[in-house]
Amino acid sequence: MGVQTILHMNEGNGDLSYARNSIVQNKIISQASEVTKEVILNLYSTTLPERLNIADLGCSSGPNAVRQIHEIMDFVDQKRRQLGRASPEFHCFLNDLPGNDFNTVFKGLPVFYEKLKAEKGSDFGPCFIAGVPGSFYGRLFPRSSLHLVVSSTSLHWLSQVPVGLHSGTNAHLNKGKLYISKTSPPHVLRSYLDQFQLDFSTFLMSRSQEIIIGGRMVLTLIGRKSANPSSEECCFQWDLLANALMDMVHEGLIEEEKVDSLNVPFYSPSPEELMHIIEMEGSFASIT
Amino acid sequence: MGVQTILHMNEGNGDLSYARNSIVQNKIISQASEVTKEVILNLYSTTLPERLNIADLGCSSGPNAVRQIHEIMDFVDQKRRQLGRASPEFHCFLNDLPGNDFNTVFKGLPVFYEKLKAEKGSDFGPCFIAGVPGSFYGRLFPRSSLHLVVSSTSLHWLSQVPVGLHSGTNAHLNKGKLYISKTSPPHVLRSYLDQFQLDFSTFLMSRSQEIIIGGRMVLTLIGRKSANPSSEECCFQWDLLANALMDMVHEGLIEEEKVDSLNVPFYSPSPEELMHIIEMEGSFASIT
Repeated sequence: MGVQTILHMNEGNGDLSYARNSIVQNKIISQASEVTKEVILNLYSTTLPERLNIADLGCSSGPNAVRQIHEIMDFVDQKRRQLGRASPEFHCFLNDLPGNDFNTVFKGLPVFYEKLKAEKGSDFGPCFIAGVPGSFYGRLFPRSSLHLVVSSTSLHWLSQVPVGLHSGTNAHLNKGKLYISKTSPPHVLRSYLDQFQLDFSTFLMSRSQEIIIGGRMVLTLIGRKSANPSSEECCFQWDLLANALMDMVHEGLIEEEKVDSLNVPFYSPSPEELMHIIEMEGSFASIT
Repeated sequence: MGVQTILHMNEGNGDLSYARNSIVQNKIISQASEVTKEVILNLYSTTLPERLNIADLGCSSGPNAVRQIHEIMDFVDQKRRQLGRASPEFHCFLNDLPGNDFNTVFKGLPVFYEKLKAEKGSDFGPCFIAGVPGSFYGRLFPRSSLHLVVSSTSLHWLSQVPVGLHSGTNAHLNKGKLYISKTSPPHVLRSYLDQFQLDFSTFLMSRSQEIIIGGRMVLTLIGRKSANPSSEECCFQWDLLANALMDMVHEGLIEEEKVDSLNVPFYSPSPEELMHIIEMEGSFASIT
């Protein structure tokens, strides 16, 4: 069973749900807001489309699920009023893996639509929201069908545990660790980077087929400043978790073998690594 | 709280789930299959689109949820091979009320995609499936965005309990009954027909904005042959259920008041009633 059928955030609205534990993600969306505004206003003002097709990839299931599309519609609505134009229709696609709790997102939509109507009046939109289950490391939409793609705090999740660490003799190379660490052998670092390169390239290739000419993307992901992938800024949290698991090993609560073979499907790239992949693909024009 | 936030089929895959109790609906889809085939082949052959946007309205959550779109893609794929053409892309939208169990449908999609690929090879489609939560008694899609709309065994469900029976002094007019019955006063019959007319007109108006010029619809709903809406063919099942509830009243298990005020949001129209609404709206060309 692939990562895409297992991985998902905690469902529902309980204390342990993603819906109630996504404050950091919310803050990151806020910080990216100015860039998104600039991008969408430029897109709208230059093309003045009657319909805007917008995809949020990796929307998850909490209150953040509709936050970005709400904000984007706000920006466009202010601008079209300034320009004295009729509102475009908004076709919004919320994407996440098939195991995501779309039911909770969908149950909240009637209230969201009512709120939009109260905020913006009857001459807004309309806005139509659909859910798109599937991995963004592959095609999700027809050719040339999207004006804008956003993805927030999702692209640091890999499509799978790096192939080079997946099984066989390499499966235990990263002893007592969950991610790249100061003690990880070079093969571990290489495997993580290779997997990220493969995944991010696949992402760009897929989107380049789906986005219309002149369309835009705003991608926000966890990266690192340092050129060194085993620097503390990116390994600290995973080292902490690995230490906690190793304590449990020493207390006999879990087997050491389990921890040795466990590697998280996560990678925080440096700006140079990102730029290198983007230049290789040659599909996209600018990076902020 | 409106009907659209309450009504949904039983979730999951358990013994009482809709997924395991929808054999009748499956049979109806089979019977409508020939009509659907004729309609989609005519649409495809006359327009030869590079992309087909298909919506199944009221898809529910069992194995039937993807059955119709699967069948439609089969028909098109056979035809395009006969004609020696490249496969169109399929953008399929599964719609139901926001309370529908979309999670179960979505979790089944990876296997569905794999099955499609194995059946039809890599030169098929691709096919992209999205979920659209919302009432089809209103807009669900942007203007002129759909080639084909299908809806099977859903349109006999009204948007709400008929307005004329909803509250106040009229709420208890239909004593001891759940639906139109031989003992129902004329106001009950009128209220049901009025609600159906209003709902079906709204449905047609909404779709007429969403379907492209030359697009098609195949609608299957439970109707009646008789001109009389209180004839046995359409009331029998509801009378049976009402009798069972009244037995429970006599045993003191539920209050009579509850049964008196209960009316199901359902209507099985006669062909003449359907034709009358369609002619009033004037939007659609033929009915089978």
